[in-house]
Amino acid sequence: VPRRPRAPTEHEWIRRLLRRLGDAGPGVVVGPGDDAAALRVGSTTLLVTTDALVEGVHFRTGWLSPRALGERAYRVNASDVAAMGGRPRAAVVALEVPPGVGARVLDQIVAGFVAAARLHGAALVGGNLARGRALAVTVTLLGVAGARIVTRGGARPGDVVAVTGRLGATGCAVRARRAGRRVALPRVPDRVEAGARLAAVATAMIDVSDGLVQDLGHVARASGVAIRVDAWRVPVAPTCRGRHALGIALTAGEDYELACTVPPRRLAAARRRARGAGVALTAVGVVQAGRPSVTIVDEAGRRLRLRAGGFDHLAGPRRRR
Amino acid sequence: VPRRPRAPTEHEWIRRLLRRLGDAGPGVVVGPGDDAAALRVGSTTLLVTTDALVEGVHFRTGWLSPRALGERAYRVNASDVAAMGGRPRAAVVALEVPPGVGARVLDQIVAGFVAAARLHGAALVGGNLARGRALAVTVTLLGVAGARIVTRGGARPGDVVAVTGRLGATGCAVRARRAGRRVALPRVPDRVEAGARLAAVATAMIDVSDGLVQDLGHVARASGVAIRVDAWRVPVAPTCRGRHALGIALTAGEDYELACTVPPRRLAAARRRARGAGVALTAVGVVQAGRPSVTIVDEAGRRLRLRAGGFDHLAGPRRRR
Repeated sequence: VPRRPRAPTEHEWIRRLLRRLGDAGPGVVVGPGDDAAALRVGSTTLLVTTDALVEGVHFRTGWLSPRALGERAYRVNASDVAAMGGRPRAAVVALEVPPGVGARVLDQIVAGFVAAARLHGAALVGGNLARGRALAVTVTLLGVAGARIVTRGGARPGDVVAVTGRLGATGCAVRARRAGRRVALPRVPDRVEAGARLAAVATAMIDVSDGLVQDLGHVARASGVAIRVDAWRVPVAPTCRGRHALGIALTAGEDYELACTVPPRRLAAARRRARGAGVALTAVGVVQAGRPSVTIVDEAGRRLRLRAGGFDHLAGPRRRR
Repeated sequence: VPRRPRAPTEHEWIRRLLRRLGDAGPGVVVGPGDDAAALRVGSTTLLVTTDALVEGVHFRTGWLSPRALGERAYRVNASDVAAMGGRPRAAVVALEVPPGVGARVLDQIVAGFVAAARLHGAALVGGNLARGRALAVTVTLLGVAGARIVTRGGARPGDVVAVTGRLGATGCAVRARRAGRRVALPRVPDRVEAGARLAAVATAMIDVSDGLVQDLGHVARASGVAIRVDAWRVPVAPTCRGRHALGIALTAGEDYELACTVPPRRLAAARRRARGAGVALTAVGVVQAGRPSVTIVDEAGRRLRLRAGGFDHLAGPRRRR
């Protein structure tokens, strides 16, 4: 039995925040609890998301170059905007810098960030610098929503569950590094174009940051549906091998692919749209009526149990890196 | 001679960032380096600012209740929006939480934040929670610009330099606390209404976060002007007494009043506008032609030298709290 952590998990805390805040106010189209908030500004719907990379929690020095850290900080946020079907527009970066980290490192972090942002035509418009005990990069990214905003709450019974790309590469790389092998941490994929194209046909969408099962759990709860995942259909990254590969692909976080739900008659269109954005879309399950839940079944239809429930950023030390 | 810090100061780093980024991109009306960035979104001009409060750097546990910390985190950001003449609209909060800090503390931080934001009709629309070694609250605040955006760069020779409220209360309280006296840290004043009203007549504006002299230095550099401050006219907070009071009022940070420059013929109007927002506006100096600089003079016109150059968030441990 896992030790009960004293601090709430990120998801518990955000759920509590949601209850406290209720209706977030006029002009707030989507409040806290989705990948990004959506805010009506004139005739534009702005998407807002914030995410932090903290040394010792989300990365270890030596696993990532400063430049790669900057790119990663941008892309984990862009992933949230992509999951709403939007396009990044502008960002601010707040850095906490421990003693001994100098200007050259900060410049490389910013250079990696700006280079990744420019691919989307997004500008770095502001920053903050504070001393801290560990290096931390906190990004707030603003995006512009497309014609349709796709939340976690639109999945309907009968929809197909599908994911872009392949899963497990990051989880397997982290496992290998912990075992002492010098494996490169995969870069965060750029799914902004895919997200924007899928938004026209998806009923719900989320980025796979906490692990597929846990992230589909968010969709199930927000949509009030049950989700069945057919384990054998989950696309496992080729670098993720061994008897734990499928478990890692199902539960390890930080792959930053997109998971979406699509009405069956739109599946072919969704696949074409993803392919047009340079990525495969694989159907991995179905949405069913029922209490919010995620069930994983094997080819014989037997339920599988997973040892770990995905990747929760405050759940405990076991899945930290 | 102060030891040269290995890490760049916040202002050096932002200046370097400015040079690197140049023109920040289409739709970016004001880029990095001012109190907030300004971004054209449809027919609205959005203001964006980010600021962090880090335990051990910006506050000490025990100096502020969690609720007061939440309010402070909101208001230091609202101060940046106010300094551009804008009004806060929506915020996201990223928390880093060390072990041992539980849900009750986080809830109180958020409650303090939300209560302060609601006074402006601003909504908390998103958050992020990560483990960290020290408690840190990083806020990004979005505001809506008024008809005129006031930057740091508009001061003209002949303008009067004026400040809202009184200075030195926070600096003196920090000094007293360091000496072991249990003095309350002053709350950050709410100058949003004053900023919005002053924006119609001010040529430049900044919030006094780093200390009056240092912040006027930012105005001098951005505007390409020299600024003379008449020390005896600086309004010193009544709680700030003793022979160091004036020096603290001139250089200590975190008062979060507004400093602005106003053409002489608009000074009476500026005073009325500030008074309409519930705060006094005091003329403390003049803008002159010349190389960017801030000079402080006494009543006899003699130049005063200050021992410390204000409050810079990475400059070293001496002025930390």
